[in-house]
Amino acid sequence: MIDAQVSMPEYLLQQLNWRYATKQFDPDQQISEALWTRLEHSLVLSPSSFGLQPWKFFVVRDPQLRQQFQQYAWDQSQVVEASHLVVFAYKRGINASDVDRYIQRVASVRQTPIEDLQGFSDMIKGYIDRVSDIDAWSARQTYIALGMFLSAAAMLGIDACPMEGFDPDKVDQALGLPEQGYASVALCAAGYRSEEDKYADLAKVRFPAEQVIEYVG
Amino acid sequence: MIDAQVSMPEYLLQQLNWRYATKQFDPDQQISEALWTRLEHSLVLSPSSFGLQPWKFFVVRDPQLRQQFQQYAWDQSQVVEASHLVVFAYKRGINASDVDRYIQRVASVRQTPIEDLQGFSDMIKGYIDRVSDIDAWSARQTYIALGMFLSAAAMLGIDACPMEGFDPDKVDQALGLPEQGYASVALCAAGYRSEEDKYADLAKVRFPAEQVIEYVG
Repeated sequence: MIDAQVSMPEYLLQQLNWRYATKQFDPDQQISEALWTRLEHSLVLSPSSFGLQPWKFFVVRDPQLRQQFQQYAWDQSQVVEASHLVVFAYKRGINASDVDRYIQRVASVRQTPIEDLQGFSDMIKGYIDRVSDIDAWSARQTYIALGMFLSAAAMLGIDACPMEGFDPDKVDQALGLPEQGYASVALCAAGYRSEEDKYADLAKVRFPAEQVIEYVG
Repeated sequence: MIDAQVSMPEYLLQQLNWRYATKQFDPDQQISEALWTRLEHSLVLSPSSFGLQPWKFFVVRDPQLRQQFQQYAWDQSQVVEASHLVVFAYKRGINASDVDRYIQRVASVRQTPIEDLQGFSDMIKGYIDRVSDIDAWSARQTYIALGMFLSAAAMLGIDACPMEGFDPDKVDQALGLPEQGYASVALCAAGYRSEEDKYADLAKVRFPAEQVIEYVG
């Protein structure tokens, strides 16, 4: 997979340059089960504030549902043609009981008495209490996972297309998210670019580094 | 850098498991200029909706400013002890003129007549016009860059600590962000973990995959 002649720093930038928002996927090329398992796991491992993971990821495989989602998403063909489609959703109204559930998980994974985590628990509860718009906060966290996913896909040579252009209410209804307490914020198609995707050959457009990075001191 | 015995998919997950929110950095270990250049470039290459890049990244090197920022950030030692400190900021009130600036960049990079980009320009303007809270939207985009940065750091064997626990108004004032039209949403320290950081050895806490990933169909 890795060209032994390429060092990791070179490989990283090569792949970040290689990736692009794929418009046309090859519908005949599926991500192998082994590779998908790895890519999916990048979502599980994604960092979040306090490690709270205020999110859920829905992998939509049902072809009829994906056709329906295409209609909800400006008719973008990626929704049906890519190997995989992931709906990124945040948990609505994160509150103290979510923190309790997380703290129980910490206690279980680290085999720590729950009493020893009281201070950590109180700190998180105090913090989320002061967040002015908790849903906006959880949505932001979910975009960290989106960034991790896009980066992981690039490292694995998998093409991806993140999409915000869709009707979240309709997607939420179709997946039963309101009942589960989640709300979608982004779709991401993953698979392999079609040889016919003319966007693949366009130069990547970024502002010059000196316009987006400023050194202070 | 890469163990030739480890395949890319294995390396990716190994590094995502290796990373953690580093609490104690080794103040004597600096990220080399060559490696930092690569890590920094992952920010430049970060994807965003329409490629609009509604953000700016401030690399704070001034030691006095970093001491000041430590006070603004719950006294977290990472702010001063890590090799590098990046302030992630979004652009306030993204509007049609930002789109025009971006379209000019597209035209220049792709050597396309600006008239040919009218449809693309109109589509972006129409979209951002309909976004109910444009600053929240830009802040979310900036979290994609945060995810990319954390992932890139992990791939390069660089430790990082993203931080939301700070007073954004004070950081913004100190950096002159209001005048520039930006607002900070996260800090991220980057460098190398101290051997004394007891958090390095704690088991990573994530919810079981089946609780965060749901297959539909």
